[in-house]
Amino acid sequence: MYDLIIIGAGTAGISAYKEAIKYTQNILIINAGSWDTTCARVGCMPSKLLISSANRMHDIKTAENLGLQHDAVINTSTVMDRLHKLRDHYIRATLKEVEQWDSTHKVSGHAEFTNAQTVQVKGKSYQAKSFIIAVGSRPNFDATLKDELGDKLLTSDEIFELTQLPKSLAVIGSGVIAIELAQAMQRLGVRTTMFARSQKIGALTSPTLQALVREQLNNELDIKFKTLPNQVKLLTDQVKIDYIENDQKQSLEVDYVLSATGRSSNLDRLGLEKINPEFQDVKKLPINKKTKQLENLPIFIVGDAAPDVPIQHEAAHNGKEVVQNCLNFPDVQPISALTPLAIVFSQPEMAIIGQSFKQLEEKNTEYIRGFVSYERQGRALILSENKGGAEVYIDKMSGKLLGAELFCPQAEHLAHMLAWMIDAEQDIHQILAKPYYHPTLEEGLRTAFKHARRQLDQQEVIDNS
Amino acid sequence: MYDLIIIGAGTAGISAYKEAIKYTQNILIINAGSWDTTCARVGCMPSKLLISSANRMHDIKTAENLGLQHDAVINTSTVMDRLHKLRDHYIRATLKEVEQWDSTHKVSGHAEFTNAQTVQVKGKSYQAKSFIIAVGSRPNFDATLKDELGDKLLTSDEIFELTQLPKSLAVIGSGVIAIELAQAMQRLGVRTTMFARSQKIGALTSPTLQALVREQLNNELDIKFKTLPNQVKLLTDQVKIDYIENDQKQSLEVDYVLSATGRSSNLDRLGLEKINPEFQDVKKLPINKKTKQLENLPIFIVGDAAPDVPIQHEAAHNGKEVVQNCLNFPDVQPISALTPLAIVFSQPEMAIIGQSFKQLEEKNTEYIRGFVSYERQGRALILSENKGGAEVYIDKMSGKLLGAELFCPQAEHLAHMLAWMIDAEQDIHQILAKPYYHPTLEEGLRTAFKHARRQLDQQEVIDNS
Repeated sequence: MYDLIIIGAGTAGISAYKEAIKYTQNILIINAGSWDTTCARVGCMPSKLLISSANRMHDIKTAENLGLQHDAVINTSTVMDRLHKLRDHYIRATLKEVEQWDSTHKVSGHAEFTNAQTVQVKGKSYQAKSFIIAVGSRPNFDATLKDELGDKLLTSDEIFELTQLPKSLAVIGSGVIAIELAQAMQRLGVRTTMFARSQKIGALTSPTLQALVREQLNNELDIKFKTLPNQVKLLTDQVKIDYIENDQKQSLEVDYVLSATGRSSNLDRLGLEKINPEFQDVKKLPINKKTKQLENLPIFIVGDAAPDVPIQHEAAHNGKEVVQNCLNFPDVQPISALTPLAIVFSQPEMAIIGQSFKQLEEKNTEYIRGFVSYERQGRALILSENKGGAEVYIDKMSGKLLGAELFCPQAEHLAHMLAWMIDAEQDIHQILAKPYYHPTLEEGLRTAFKHARRQLDQQEVIDNS
Repeated sequence: MYDLIIIGAGTAGISAYKEAIKYTQNILIINAGSWDTTCARVGCMPSKLLISSANRMHDIKTAENLGLQHDAVINTSTVMDRLHKLRDHYIRATLKEVEQWDSTHKVSGHAEFTNAQTVQVKGKSYQAKSFIIAVGSRPNFDATLKDELGDKLLTSDEIFELTQLPKSLAVIGSGVIAIELAQAMQRLGVRTTMFARSQKIGALTSPTLQALVREQLNNELDIKFKTLPNQVKLLTDQVKIDYIENDQKQSLEVDYVLSATGRSSNLDRLGLEKINPEFQDVKKLPINKKTKQLENLPIFIVGDAAPDVPIQHEAAHNGKEVVQNCLNFPDVQPISALTPLAIVFSQPEMAIIGQSFKQLEEKNTEYIRGFVSYERQGRALILSENKGGAEVYIDKMSGKLLGAELFCPQAEHLAHMLAWMIDAEQDIHQILAKPYYHPTLEEGLRTAFKHARRQLDQQEVIDNS
């Protein structure tokens, strides 16, 4: 019997293995498919590579804003080639690491539980005192759409395999992956149309910022709000999409359709119902949010197999942290939680840090909202990136920074800074006493904090009167 | 007699006025020349405007790295025009603010002290209980060079007035202003040659990072290290520069010479020697670093008139903070100090945060140096900005972050984050427990912190054995 079996060798599984190996050699890691990660193959890395080329192309096209005129015709034929080369570099780095592991620790194949201490892989049984499940997730798509379109229906699993950029693309969905890829494709000269079920684009929950997002991205992208295709049909080399816009029948022909309507956990492939028939619906598994434990079993679920937001750095963190709960079972402790930090690599970038607007509203938190527009912000103007805005949320009683939502240039950096401030439990007065170099985008955040402080001061006047 | 006279209406003076007016209307602000700021007219703003256009031009020229081919010929004829328009916008914003002030508070002209409580402006005397001196600084240049070259010798006061970019430029100096302007001009297609007295480029004090700076910037710019012009002569429309390189006489013809050899305080124009003959040498004034007080007088010196590093956000901060010392005189208190933060807008950017390498070495501090190279850093590779490196300095006993030096992409943002961490008194373990999104440049800093932690751990093993 093994001390620990890890199922899945993606970001969370690899992180768990590297931690566990410090304490025991009596472990196994079982993986179906290639021994690399969603992140390296079809996630973070290829998407950021595509976005980097796309943003550079946009920078070239908008150079006039910086006083530079040219009539460049840009050839994008090597964009996918660059993407593949660098992506393969990251995949190789992962594979190389896994290759160095003791080969007796690794089993390739699909694991299914027969009971809470036993899994079967290719007919062979393996028993362990505890399990870490890190089987990841897969993109959603409509099966009838796939039947109709075949290779013309892409998900994020396939889009990065294209050897050339298409001429046109329809994107179904308006979430994080949809907006990142749609904007990148549009900027790379792919005629892109987005079908959005709702008015919401990306991840932000603040209505003020959502309005800015809609206005800004709708300028650049053809977004059909509250509109989904009625009918989708495969022509010889194109896909024909029928939809209703302003009560009129419309149709569109595109090279490909990208389905970007979220991801589903791979937990449903593990036969968890053999452990307990109530585990049939994997969306309703009794997973403890703090310990990651499944019910009272020696089974812990991490990474984007779990029903939380699938974020790579949290997968790595939780994969590592949960190892002690396995090795010390049944002494199960809450694992350390990171300050929430989610970034969307649109342009302007979006980020949610700490508690979101929606979470604060739902909890009826007494908080102050500080806002800044980046449309006239000094450095943003200089860079000709003066778009968007930011909100910071301050606890009314303690003055502490609770959270923030950003839709502004370089939000990824500002988001880290704000997350680190929340983690360090800093309040608005401490944050306003910090250095803000001139002229920087950080000065925009200061404007938002000052906006919040004025409201706090007024509040005090009211409270004292 | 006024409560307070402020001399100089730049960043520090404006900040002081806006604070003082909250407490007294019995104040005066005296200003020579235009009522705007070095920052807006000839400093931060125009330099960042020039750099923004320059970096965009570089991005266009290096687009091949992102898989984008083109043969753009770029016309830079409107670069200076854009610079002027936006710069004037910032100048107008300052002027507009000053216009709204009570006109009886403002005196235009050059102030000279007759004693410690009296200044004269255009023959008229003004007395005050206290003074804030915020008269700023001016660029250094060699007077004989000016005599020879006339308008062909530029300083940062003149270069932003050019209506067109020159074809060629020689830059004398290799400090912060020299490197920012030289790199920007070169990137804008101006054939630029830099004459550097030493091997040092920019502000970083770490020998490791200085070596990276030299290697990197020397690739892009023609830098003559340890070489200054021997002779400089005005031809019809050009400047001829003779110099010795590798023991060989060389000469160079350029459109303009930019003298960027530091700045001198304007304190020497105030007649301070009338207060005390020992104040003749303004470089040796007895200014208290913590209170900004001159000797035991009711005179406080702030902004880049003071002999510290001329940094805009510190000028604003100190101008405001010193007001209480004026109004409560003789109860003089140390003003609050900001965590040091200095940024150079080269590319990659440079930054010094908290205590520099040099300061730590000179004080014989027991510290650990964590290093990361950005040459293979994940996100930097994706962005094709994989250059440079970063160092973090950790106190050996407490584990606290003491300082850092950066020469890496987006250093301005990483620098803020590190400065704020120092201000929040965070140690290496707290910093490593914070969220690092993937894939970001912040992960590079984590590599540096982990490098430091490994050394700390080894240290502990040695200490305990």
